[in-house]
Amino acid sequence: MTSTHLTRRFAVIMAFAAALLAFVAPAKAENDVTTFFLDNGLQVVVIPDRRAPVVTHMVWYKVGSADEEPGRSGVAHFLEHLMFKGTERHAAGEFSAVISAIGGSENAFTSQDYTAYYQQVGPESLLTMMEFEADRMRGLILTEEVVAPELDVVIEERRARIDSSPGGLLGEELEATLFQNHPYRMPVIGWMHEIEKLDREQAVAFYDLHYAPNNAILVVAGDVDAGTVRELAERTYGAVPRGPELPPRERPQEPPQDTDRTVTMTDPRVSVPSLQRAWLVPSYNSAAPGEAEALDLLAEILGGGVRSRLYQQLVVKTGIAASAGAGYRASALDDTSFSVYGAPRGEADLAAVEAAIEAQVALIANEGVTDDELRRAKDRFVRSMIFARDSQTGMARIYGALLATGSTVEDIEGWPDRVRAVTADDVRDAARRYLAARAHVTGYLLPQAGAGQ
Amino acid sequence: MTSTHLTRRFAVIMAFAAALLAFVAPAKAENDVTTFFLDNGLQVVVIPDRRAPVVTHMVWYKVGSADEEPGRSGVAHFLEHLMFKGTERHAAGEFSAVISAIGGSENAFTSQDYTAYYQQVGPESLLTMMEFEADRMRGLILTEEVVAPELDVVIEERRARIDSSPGGLLGEELEATLFQNHPYRMPVIGWMHEIEKLDREQAVAFYDLHYAPNNAILVVAGDVDAGTVRELAERTYGAVPRGPELPPRERPQEPPQDTDRTVTMTDPRVSVPSLQRAWLVPSYNSAAPGEAEALDLLAEILGGGVRSRLYQQLVVKTGIAASAGAGYRASALDDTSFSVYGAPRGEADLAAVEAAIEAQVALIANEGVTDDELRRAKDRFVRSMIFARDSQTGMARIYGALLATGSTVEDIEGWPDRVRAVTADDVRDAARRYLAARAHVTGYLLPQAGAGQ
Repeated sequence: MTSTHLTRRFAVIMAFAAALLAFVAPAKAENDVTTFFLDNGLQVVVIPDRRAPVVTHMVWYKVGSADEEPGRSGVAHFLEHLMFKGTERHAAGEFSAVISAIGGSENAFTSQDYTAYYQQVGPESLLTMMEFEADRMRGLILTEEVVAPELDVVIEERRARIDSSPGGLLGEELEATLFQNHPYRMPVIGWMHEIEKLDREQAVAFYDLHYAPNNAILVVAGDVDAGTVRELAERTYGAVPRGPELPPRERPQEPPQDTDRTVTMTDPRVSVPSLQRAWLVPSYNSAAPGEAEALDLLAEILGGGVRSRLYQQLVVKTGIAASAGAGYRASALDDTSFSVYGAPRGEADLAAVEAAIEAQVALIANEGVTDDELRRAKDRFVRSMIFARDSQTGMARIYGALLATGSTVEDIEGWPDRVRAVTADDVRDAARRYLAARAHVTGYLLPQAGAGQ
Repeated sequence: MTSTHLTRRFAVIMAFAAALLAFVAPAKAENDVTTFFLDNGLQVVVIPDRRAPVVTHMVWYKVGSADEEPGRSGVAHFLEHLMFKGTERHAAGEFSAVISAIGGSENAFTSQDYTAYYQQVGPESLLTMMEFEADRMRGLILTEEVVAPELDVVIEERRARIDSSPGGLLGEELEATLFQNHPYRMPVIGWMHEIEKLDREQAVAFYDLHYAPNNAILVVAGDVDAGTVRELAERTYGAVPRGPELPPRERPQEPPQDTDRTVTMTDPRVSVPSLQRAWLVPSYNSAAPGEAEALDLLAEILGGGVRSRLYQQLVVKTGIAASAGAGYRASALDDTSFSVYGAPRGEADLAAVEAAIEAQVALIANEGVTDDELRRAKDRFVRSMIFARDSQTGMARIYGALLATGSTVEDIEGWPDRVRAVTADDVRDAARRYLAARAHVTGYLLPQAGAGQ
């Protein structure tokens, strides 16, 4: 089965930021999002979408790589793989075979803060999905016979995705440098030397502790009403016993960062140099009211696509860059990263790209953004929202990711209004406070012959 | 009371490296070091030294800041302070008052890997010292009334030693960058935001788990024979019950490091810029046979004092540097750091100093050291050894630190022979393998107006 890692490299940050930005405007009555809890603590969210006979069924566990014990990086993701290994009731692979037979699709992914499993099927198959998903919520059976070969799969996955990619390795060391104390410094997939030592016992302990209705969120989006979802959920998930009571998710936090840092990877496989710079900033969950929204709009105005200042100035106007942009990993439980990136075009110099990026950041911090820019950025958000309404899975992901990182349904529903309330001064202040006045970490990816920074 | 932190800044690294190098040659019969265990697991080491009527009495606990739980940095050092707070038998301050009254001295220190307490007194007071020290091994009484004010003392200590010192802050971020996964990345004194949250419960839990005869080493050096020490130790420490059985000290290890990193602190309080560069290298405990000895000699030849290549070339010959040297944090449980450092003199440039340091490292990696240099370096070791024989405390510290980080008494006694066996090729190979071929982290301390690296 395929799993998508929300690693911290730019493509994914951007995709995820886009998904977050893609939140829909307040729902009309027939589209009202509803939420309720089962007696065993499972939160259920229903997002009606009647346009087509399709439902998206997602279960989000409030556990990710940042909840792993020291020395056991990768266990959250390893368990994501193992969740397809069967229960007393269903053999390994049976769930996927059923989905395939009815023409559905499925996926799973692990992030720092959550792990999610989803299927997209016709409404008539929702009950079947719930039965399977509820069954493996606490009924997973892990024998040595299934665990050992799957560990080899994960090791191979790491080799293919990270170890063979200079950018992947640089990204890991950049994160490990930006975060000095917080477990966000560890790669979601885990460090190879720790993956290799994972075993059945560790996976089972992690599963027993974290996989339970009282630590999960069920999101159902699509052609189904809340009453039906409640009835089906009670018949299936309702029978799953509570798991252990878990303490608050209080991870070690960052100390003040007083130094600028660089992380340089030189590799013969690199043909075009590039750089990325990251700052530690608050997330939607850790920010003071309004600040995360201002950072979101700052990322959009500074580097969110082809209309952004970075793209217009570096790629279009001066042409020194082949790419340039910004990203904000907004939906995180704890303080997170705001990043900019760029790569030179042709004979242009990486240092010139870096200086131009710095100048654009300084310009916003010093002079702010125009009302027109802000209005257009908000408009782009609205267009993203409209686009998201076309994406049932996108909506379900937004709700799941934000609910799993400390937001409430009310927070999510109030988000568009909070974004509209952001002023040009708020955006300038966010750039001043979090970018201009704070230490940063810059990663350089250089060809072997490159002179370096 | 005074406590000395083995933090990772250069002065201390160097002092400690010097102490390690200062190990004495194999003892003559009357000076034979003996070791035995009490029934409760306490290891006892006796180092006879009859030259003066003085004994050094040290207890080493095999626990340090690298054994702290995530989010609780500083608890090992906080507990070191709390160890002076009294027991059922002795009020707070009584132990220190007795030492003072008899004209003795005392100290305590916390490192990444161990915590130690010692007194120097006349032989007639050894029993008293043992009684007090055995009493507080498991008998410490910590009430809210004594814990809370001592936390303020520690907070003030951190403020004075680290937060008011740009070099101190840079050193912390350098360590946090060099170590991406291992707990050596955390400061021994703890990060302020975590110190502030330490409490009685955490200190007591740490104490109960780690302070016990089966996790401690008693080192007695001085004017006393092994038979007497055994008899006194059995009367005092022998009555202390075993503590919990502790698992092996397996900390999270470093992933491969594939990037060069820099950490730059710019501060108006800095008048002269300086740099230090660190590599991850094996320690005496983690190295293959002979490699740590080669690294020790490499540090000595490259940068151990005024005869070293760095000093001679940068300070004496070209005169571009006001200081330059190297250090190796040899006695650590896990992989550790090898460092070089330098600061420009007068109008010389930090970049020139850095280039000159790099050239000296490359020279050894490419061309090795001369037999004459190696012989003289070994001679300097021997002279350090002779000097150490004059220092009873120095000897006790060498035994304690090495025994607490995985060495045996036999390892320590065989050390001079292993150093003598190191060849010039071994030193060159160590420079090649661990410095030239490996990623490094460079810290820059710059005046506010400084142009940066």
